[in-house]
Amino acid sequence: MSFSMSKASLPAIEIGLNALSGVLDKAQAFATAKKVDPSVLLGTRLCPDMFALTRQVQIASDLAKNGMARLAGVEPPRFEDTETTIDQLKARLAKTVAYLKTLDAKKIDASADRDITFPLGPTNKGHMKGDDFLNHFVLPNVYFHLTAAYAILRHCGVEIGKSDFLGAIPMKRT
Amino acid sequence: MSFSMSKASLPAIEIGLNALSGVLDKAQAFATAKKVDPSVLLGTRLCPDMFALTRQVQIASDLAKNGMARLAGVEPPRFEDTETTIDQLKARLAKTVAYLKTLDAKKIDASADRDITFPLGPTNKGHMKGDDFLNHFVLPNVYFHLTAAYAILRHCGVEIGKSDFLGAIPMKRT
Repeated sequence: MSFSMSKASLPAIEIGLNALSGVLDKAQAFATAKKVDPSVLLGTRLCPDMFALTRQVQIASDLAKNGMARLAGVEPPRFEDTETTIDQLKARLAKTVAYLKTLDAKKIDASADRDITFPLGPTNKGHMKGDDFLNHFVLPNVYFHLTAAYAILRHCGVEIGKSDFLGAIPMKRT
Repeated sequence: MSFSMSKASLPAIEIGLNALSGVLDKAQAFATAKKVDPSVLLGTRLCPDMFALTRQVQIASDLAKNGMARLAGVEPPRFEDTETTIDQLKARLAKTVAYLKTLDAKKIDASADRDITFPLGPTNKGHMKGDDFLNHFVLPNVYFHLTAAYAILRHCGVEIGKSDFLGAIPMKRT
């Protein structure tokens, strides 16, 4: 099997989003054990002008769904940002993974030289070739927000480690 | 130009490491302006059992150099972890980028089905196929530590934003 843009993205993003869902399970267990309202965790930021945990999860979902949809040449669905509980955020992640599975891998593979235009904030637009968009925007940004969500929970004291971040990767350990 | 493992990794990792070097410049400027010893920033952790900034930079360098060397089928050089200043960490990043440029992209491209064995801590070993190793171990881990380093500095109050994290990506903005 040859390497391709879809192989370099869909499985890793799905594993990463599912791993974040598992990290959120540990956050829920931590909140229960410590008798802390889970909304405290969801509202935690690493600094005042960085997004809180809820928004980090929503943005990881958006970047994955919007980025991969653009590469597949389809209009991404809009997910309302209404989640207020860990269960709702886990459902958002599951919905994102389910959506990624509907995308046409062949269209993604054929997008390397296609010009991709995407919103950068409310007024600006970014323009990149498809392969650059995947390698230099979608993947770094998805991993950024997956890591930020994880780091917020580590900062709060949730007992998670690198293997929780990596998730169900196809690795044999001896 | 077709997509390949080297195209999916070397340019993005180099841009990410160079971006971290730029983030460290802003950390140095912050320390000077606030009359803070830079070693305070270098010793900051997001929680007591997470690595401090210096170690995050060293590990990002190691994962990039060791991961890509293994895919290229060569023995990675060992970099001693002796850095104690921002300038030394920037030199470590520059040395890592220079090393990545010496790797044979064709060997990396041909490694998709090769079995890769790599150390996991002091006693264990991980085993993955080359393409899985790139997509599910090297890239997520490199981005994890690049983001952790960035997040530590945001947490300290250094004025950096997402574009500092992404670095010199090939994007046109309108």
